[in-house]
Amino acid sequence: MNPKAIQDYYPDDVSHCFGCGRLNADGHHVRSFWEGEEAVARFTPRPEHTAIPGYVYGGLLASLIDCHGTGTAAAAGYQAAGRELGSDPPLRYVTASLKVDYLRPTPMGVELELRGRPVEVKGRKVRVEVRLLADGAECARGEVVAVQMPATMGGASR
Amino acid sequence: MNPKAIQDYYPDDVSHCFGCGRLNADGHHVRSFWEGEEAVARFTPRPEHTAIPGYVYGGLLASLIDCHGTGTAAAAGYQAAGRELGSDPPLRYVTASLKVDYLRPTPMGVELELRGRPVEVKGRKVRVEVRLLADGAECARGEVVAVQMPATMGGASR
Repeated sequence: MNPKAIQDYYPDDVSHCFGCGRLNADGHHVRSFWEGEEAVARFTPRPEHTAIPGYVYGGLLASLIDCHGTGTAAAAGYQAAGRELGSDPPLRYVTASLKVDYLRPTPMGVELELRGRPVEVKGRKVRVEVRLLADGAECARGEVVAVQMPATMGGASR
Repeated sequence: MNPKAIQDYYPDDVSHCFGCGRLNADGHHVRSFWEGEEAVARFTPRPEHTAIPGYVYGGLLASLIDCHGTGTAAAAGYQAAGRELGSDPPLRYVTASLKVDYLRPTPMGVELELRGRPVEVKGRKVRVEVRLLADGAECARGEVVAVQMPATMGGASR
């Protein structure tokens, strides 16, 4: 497995995302590792990330799925183009839509695993399915439709 | 308009949610005000809640839509039952599914407005549509399927 996370390849000027930006001091720092066909991320919620006591806040789960989805999309975009991960020009995706089904309450105090799989790569769009597991049990399932960041959103590198 | 937020009526033991719990010191404290047919909430993201610089993090928007959706569901559930908001036994909803379409980038530095409208109340389930606006422009649209919290999730009040 590549020891660098997909997000480690994002250019500095688009690395401030609260969910996954390595340059956001207050953020979640989601890190997604590409394994060739899917990407995996691990995250342990903090005590304040509660919903009903004992269970993880669904909005946090949506956030993790969101950023892991766009990270997976980036890796899939490079792969579909036959390019090395992180090669120039950079491929950086943003979320067009996010869908999360909460299958069961997600327990606190457990490291969560997210597994993202690209199911469609078409032009500037990648559709990613994300499974979120706690202790091996699937607690939430997400679908992220990611699109390459439009130039109008800025970023010196585009 | 009722000066109390819908979340102000939640029992203490289910008021720790990171998104909307008044007893969560670190949370977002989403407050939703019922206006008879829809609920409105306002929220100003903090500087760290960024996505690409200049724009609000989509995971935060999903979180706001989530909690405003379950709050709207509670108000709709009371109304459908012909009961006063906050009357016993309490009605508290959790999210079964969340869908967000990001229609345009959401600008930072603006107070966001969320408007939630219940579109279906059926048994223990309420479906809510949420529009998220910045400076009057709709930036995201969400759908929350909320269900009454199952007794198995605990909470002394159920």
